[in-house]
Amino acid sequence: MFAEIITIGDEILIGQILDTNSAFIAKELNKIGISVYQITSVQDEREHILAALEEARSRAQIVIVTGGLGPTKDDITKRTFCEFFKDKLVKNEAVLQHVEKLFASFVSTPITDVNRQQAMVPSKATIFHNANGTAPGMWMQSDGVSFVSLPGVPFEMKALMINSVIPKIMEDFERPYIIHKTLVTYGLGESAVADRIEDWEGNLPYYIKLAYLPNLGKVRLRLTAKGPDKKILEDGIEGEIKKLRPLIDDIFYGTDDDETLEEFVAKLLVAKKMTLATAESCTGGKIAQKITALPGASKYFKGSVVSYATETKINILKVPKTLIDKYSVVSAEVARAMAKNANELLKTDFAIATTGNAGPTKGESDAEIGTVFIAIATPNEVFVDKFMMGKHRTRIVQKTVNKAFELLQKEILKI
Amino acid sequence: MFAEIITIGDEILIGQILDTNSAFIAKELNKIGISVYQITSVQDEREHILAALEEARSRAQIVIVTGGLGPTKDDITKRTFCEFFKDKLVKNEAVLQHVEKLFASFVSTPITDVNRQQAMVPSKATIFHNANGTAPGMWMQSDGVSFVSLPGVPFEMKALMINSVIPKIMEDFERPYIIHKTLVTYGLGESAVADRIEDWEGNLPYYIKLAYLPNLGKVRLRLTAKGPDKKILEDGIEGEIKKLRPLIDDIFYGTDDDETLEEFVAKLLVAKKMTLATAESCTGGKIAQKITALPGASKYFKGSVVSYATETKINILKVPKTLIDKYSVVSAEVARAMAKNANELLKTDFAIATTGNAGPTKGESDAEIGTVFIAIATPNEVFVDKFMMGKHRTRIVQKTVNKAFELLQKEILKI
Repeated sequence: MFAEIITIGDEILIGQILDTNSAFIAKELNKIGISVYQITSVQDEREHILAALEEARSRAQIVIVTGGLGPTKDDITKRTFCEFFKDKLVKNEAVLQHVEKLFASFVSTPITDVNRQQAMVPSKATIFHNANGTAPGMWMQSDGVSFVSLPGVPFEMKALMINSVIPKIMEDFERPYIIHKTLVTYGLGESAVADRIEDWEGNLPYYIKLAYLPNLGKVRLRLTAKGPDKKILEDGIEGEIKKLRPLIDDIFYGTDDDETLEEFVAKLLVAKKMTLATAESCTGGKIAQKITALPGASKYFKGSVVSYATETKINILKVPKTLIDKYSVVSAEVARAMAKNANELLKTDFAIATTGNAGPTKGESDAEIGTVFIAIATPNEVFVDKFMMGKHRTRIVQKTVNKAFELLQKEILKI
Repeated sequence: MFAEIITIGDEILIGQILDTNSAFIAKELNKIGISVYQITSVQDEREHILAALEEARSRAQIVIVTGGLGPTKDDITKRTFCEFFKDKLVKNEAVLQHVEKLFASFVSTPITDVNRQQAMVPSKATIFHNANGTAPGMWMQSDGVSFVSLPGVPFEMKALMINSVIPKIMEDFERPYIIHKTLVTYGLGESAVADRIEDWEGNLPYYIKLAYLPNLGKVRLRLTAKGPDKKILEDGIEGEIKKLRPLIDDIFYGTDDDETLEEFVAKLLVAKKMTLATAESCTGGKIAQKITALPGASKYFKGSVVSYATETKINILKVPKTLIDKYSVVSAEVARAMAKNANELLKTDFAIATTGNAGPTKGESDAEIGTVFIAIATPNEVFVDKFMMGKHRTRIVQKTVNKAFELLQKEILKI
């Protein structure tokens, strides 16, 4: 049993926006045991939409379509649906009332006929209430295939998926179980890891698949088990991981099942009732931003000093000017002082400090582009490490953030 | 003339990663006048790849395929290419030498046969040197359609696109010109904007298309002109914008042609030789991170105090405790003090301060979720505004960041 996802509209096709909708939908479908066979982005044109619907019907049992709705767009899409489903548009009173209520409560301009058009829906469609917007979700059947149309605004789409589409799929379809387990390795390339575990991989049972996902110095090994019996899948995956672990023990970094490293660090800090600060130079606030993106961060995160300029390191972080003059801003000594002082100034248990040169030019230090020092201050001491993070600005910052969380995690686990 | 993009591999289909590659490729192709008709993500399976190549061939003149290469994957993909192009794999000496050199220089583990396989390429393919990795780019022809295969690692793909693929397309194909101009409006909904400019829209010349792109309180109006004569397109777009502007003057926010608001602010600051600091509470470092993501930020950005905890506002930002006790952390008074003190402590010309409640719980203030105060300190004074940013954490932060840059921009333009 497969699903497909179709996005309508040219924002994705001209590269103006990333297709976050399809990623979200794919993830949610996977969680309930439904694999996505294909994702297709098409133009907002009758022929193209018809062709895409037709093709998807031949391959999948569920087709989720996003976009092409909304007051200025809906015309072509909804007419095309009617053509495809041999249906006609009718006025839906509940949707009309909702649109009118939304306008009366939240919109300063008067409602227009264009807005009222949102209440015109295919007569045979099951309608899903969109609490966050005017375009409703629609569920239509055609030759045993279920088609779902959702608005393209991510926020509206997500609520409809979670509250309406996923529950209906779970009710209507018998689904296999899917279990993903991801083991993260560090320090070896993809082919070297593959070489090491070749025999093990060759003997995996038919219902377990392995994927290699290399990124930023790590190689993720993702095991996917799929089948009708949850117990068999769970036991199978667990057994295979037991065999795999000894083969990768020296390069094993952690598991990564939807939990990010910062989420794991957050959990540890909350459990230990300990607090964190950051003093960021080359990472420019990205570590703080990643932490504060998590709900509840105020429980353990006290703040950050983003000391981008040297004088900010001196004025706010109280790094001695003599130290900077002697060792330069990109040095183990300065990183150490930043972490130590952040811990003291913000009265925390742990502090991360980063200083480095992310390019494109050398800046205030002579350090080669890619040179980064990361310091971790714990309640007892301060550790500093030097890293060469390559030559590319965005990647240098990204790798430094990942590495900082990794180092912090290790130190927290020791306490 | 159309291009299509195909991504191979299940990382996108299970929602594990966002398809940033297709967005990048689409944008680059658009820049040189080539529209993308469809983007398709397919499984790493022979039949599925063959079907996708076949379908794309029927619709496009250029097909760019990413992914499915790399040491542990390339087998199926390259064999399938050979089947599709009726070709066979041969060893490419230049690629082999490059792979061997990469391993000798940068990889701690010895090269294996799996790595050497990367040098096996279809005999008729034009090979593009991949300086950043082991899988080369490949350009193949079939029945007058050009197929390009690129590795899926974004970093390697991008370099190959820019250095090899785009130049070859520009050499091989006569292309129409495409010009995009985007006008951003603020404060009215999509349908209200559409209503206002209905007559103007109805009279657009055939070679200019309009798209409405609503997001986070703004509606972008994107005009796209396409045709063989650049001058006609430029004059046409300019003429239409002249007619459009009076219709939207009160809601006109700016243009948005690839330049983000923070890039515009950065340019202004550099031009005026002025500097910026931020004091962030509810935005948690995201403003600093957006600024420092831009190369050259050290010219104007001195740093940020992410004062997530109340005590950090007191200890580091020197906001008087009495002020906080009297007005609460989420107040105009505290926002004002944060901005003013950041400007003074970091010795900058401008400072942005944010304090608010992004939820999910009320936290240290009684302020309703979504309440945000943004203060802008200028060399002369401090402005504060209160906003209600909705109920959803991520959106509250995102909207606050956007709004902060908008307010800052206005103040800088006044100086």
